[in-house]
Amino acid sequence: MSNAALSASGRLAGHLLERLAHATTDAPGITRVAYGPGERFAHDLVRDEAEKLGATVRTDAAGNLYLALEGRNPNLPAIVIGSHLDSVPHGGNFDGAAGVVAGLAVMADLVGQGIQLPRDLIVLATRAEEAVWFPLSYPGSQAALGLLEPAALDAKRSDSGRTLADHMLEEGFDPNAVRRGVPGIDASRIAAFVEVHIEQGPRLVASGAPVGIVTGIAGGFRYVDAKCFGAYAHSGAEPRFARHDSVLGFADLVAGLEAEWDALEREGHEATITFGRVESDPSQHGGSRVLGELRFTLDVRSAEAAVLERIEARLHALFAEVGTKRGVGFEAGPRFTWEPATMSPALIARLDHAATTLEMRAPHVPSGAGHDAATFAGADIATAMIFVRNENGSHNPHEAMELADLDQAIRLLLRFVTDFDNPLGQP
Amino acid sequence: MSNAALSASGRLAGHLLERLAHATTDAPGITRVAYGPGERFAHDLVRDEAEKLGATVRTDAAGNLYLALEGRNPNLPAIVIGSHLDSVPHGGNFDGAAGVVAGLAVMADLVGQGIQLPRDLIVLATRAEEAVWFPLSYPGSQAALGLLEPAALDAKRSDSGRTLADHMLEEGFDPNAVRRGVPGIDASRIAAFVEVHIEQGPRLVASGAPVGIVTGIAGGFRYVDAKCFGAYAHSGAEPRFARHDSVLGFADLVAGLEAEWDALEREGHEATITFGRVESDPSQHGGSRVLGELRFTLDVRSAEAAVLERIEARLHALFAEVGTKRGVGFEAGPRFTWEPATMSPALIARLDHAATTLEMRAPHVPSGAGHDAATFAGADIATAMIFVRNENGSHNPHEAMELADLDQAIRLLLRFVTDFDNPLGQP
Repeated sequence: MSNAALSASGRLAGHLLERLAHATTDAPGITRVAYGPGERFAHDLVRDEAEKLGATVRTDAAGNLYLALEGRNPNLPAIVIGSHLDSVPHGGNFDGAAGVVAGLAVMADLVGQGIQLPRDLIVLATRAEEAVWFPLSYPGSQAALGLLEPAALDAKRSDSGRTLADHMLEEGFDPNAVRRGVPGIDASRIAAFVEVHIEQGPRLVASGAPVGIVTGIAGGFRYVDAKCFGAYAHSGAEPRFARHDSVLGFADLVAGLEAEWDALEREGHEATITFGRVESDPSQHGGSRVLGELRFTLDVRSAEAAVLERIEARLHALFAEVGTKRGVGFEAGPRFTWEPATMSPALIARLDHAATTLEMRAPHVPSGAGHDAATFAGADIATAMIFVRNENGSHNPHEAMELADLDQAIRLLLRFVTDFDNPLGQP
Repeated sequence: MSNAALSASGRLAGHLLERLAHATTDAPGITRVAYGPGERFAHDLVRDEAEKLGATVRTDAAGNLYLALEGRNPNLPAIVIGSHLDSVPHGGNFDGAAGVVAGLAVMADLVGQGIQLPRDLIVLATRAEEAVWFPLSYPGSQAALGLLEPAALDAKRSDSGRTLADHMLEEGFDPNAVRRGVPGIDASRIAAFVEVHIEQGPRLVASGAPVGIVTGIAGGFRYVDAKCFGAYAHSGAEPRFARHDSVLGFADLVAGLEAEWDALEREGHEATITFGRVESDPSQHGGSRVLGELRFTLDVRSAEAAVLERIEARLHALFAEVGTKRGVGFEAGPRFTWEPATMSPALIARLDHAATTLEMRAPHVPSGAGHDAATFAGADIATAMIFVRNENGSHNPHEAMELADLDQAIRLLLRFVTDFDNPLGQP
């Protein structure tokens, strides 16, 4: 589909995404560091665009951006469409940004068609969603609701080593207000939170559907700096009996957790177990070393809390078993967790209805990845997500969302917001 | 044992090693880069000391240093005592240097006691023995014998990315002469090559002996930049069926090679299999990534060529098997090899005899690590090695050789050289 075949708002979305990619290229891919220049550029870009559309613009203490189109009755709780504008390092252009841009595109459609909704429509661009920067779960959206734990402000950004509070200050925001729990928006003022996001797995591609309606978001836990430690030695001179080889310890751990994963799947459960970083110490390693230390991250996800608990228990049992067998030790290090989140059945029904009305295929899909939407669902706000078909996953430069598919998500979202105050079944 | 209890030459050895440690400290440990400032300092230090003892000093085209004490009959082939002066990064002070210093200490003993040997005694300080700098087997001692392959001069130093030839030139040497195969010393002019070296394993510590007499040096092969590659993906969003996880591929490879190692040991063979570096790509990895690439080194050693061939064959079979099972690929990358070396039975007998005469325990031990001595043995020069007891292995800052044990090695070596022209059994 050429750009000419897109709707006007689809073309606007494409134009904004292009400007974003151009300004934040960091080959391979793009980089928009949380509270860094790329995220700042993205916030400025969407703010400018919203102002052109006549939206009211404000920023909260944490730097989350609220772009509000006034409804006929501003006393009614608003519909909030939100996502984030940061990215992982050398990531793709669409993870997060596509959702904010889709919200703006809906806003442009409403303005272009002269539609004033019964209630306010707010496009929310959050901060710092990618946990690669701060080892926290959605600190931006948590702060938006006044829910961020004060200790989180002392978390350090992985690239700079400086705290979240420092980085907020540097960008002109107010970490003290965040610490006091001053919300950017009151939960009771949100009728529905909807996030559009690219799918980060292959389900929509496999099913041939442009968009999907998310049923729930997996929870999980992550160890961001675990290690297996043994003893450094000379590869030729250290006999096998005397070795404490951290590589063998790590390999055993991987195999042991995979056996647990197999068992879980046989019993009908879903989970993912992933080692996203594996590193020996560059100042110590070498061809002729027995490695005395190997550091790694471990990321475990499941929609079932009991499955997460079972994998956690097996992990610690393996630390002990493998440690004894191999003469190595394990340190789990800092752990962070995020809760599974259920999407609102009422909103899913409205999205199903809108898709049916539009004769659009929009199958139900789970989300293995975490999203800002989980924060809103966790605060008992009715929450929904629309996934957009996307090849090659995300968090990499090869994300491949088609604008035509985003255009479908925009159409679905527009229908959802315009029908929001109509009883279901009477479009 | 206090320094006061050492022989005069033992104290000299201790003094030189202290100066060396002081000048090349690079916490943790010491660093003496091949053809870098630390190695240069060490060569200057031993040259100065040899000149004070009245030795004739010369350097060959590759920068190897020959410190010669003239014998009564300079026409007889010389006894050469040699080792290297470079170190791994953040290594220990004794690996290599202890052997050169022991040679100087023997020289000091001879001069101090007014002994002129029947033949020349040459202390040889080689260059670039540690393969961490250049992916080559003993380029310094190879060049000393005019045996270095011309292509080796194009090998790149791991830290600088510049060639061996460049680094030789920069230090004032003559890579063109090395390329033409101009030797620093003629193999036919060497009656015996003896290397003193710290043991890099625990055998002498376990047997409670201060020194050991080496029976042979293991050969081996090393892949210095192997990789397992799969596909990067999002840890939560990529379902298990779609993954190409390089960590799982690597863990399978480790387990598969270890099973082969088990089988070899059950059949009575000795070998070592070591992964000395394991690294994901810092520009790509992260807590939420499925890793698309994992790089590693693989070092395999055995005194038996057939065992090396069998492990190599199993490695490539595993690349294929694991690749198919996991949907990953393997690239072995550059490979370098070194031949097993047999020590001279005649020289071993002479060392045994010297130890018996001195009432010194000097058990026979194998060398799993490679040494310059292997170059001389490979050139059909009668070669021997004396190991000095050492705790905590080598190639790390925790090497712990006692000077008292080095002093024993010096006594053994002195006896060996003074008795060298006497028939055995008539000390």
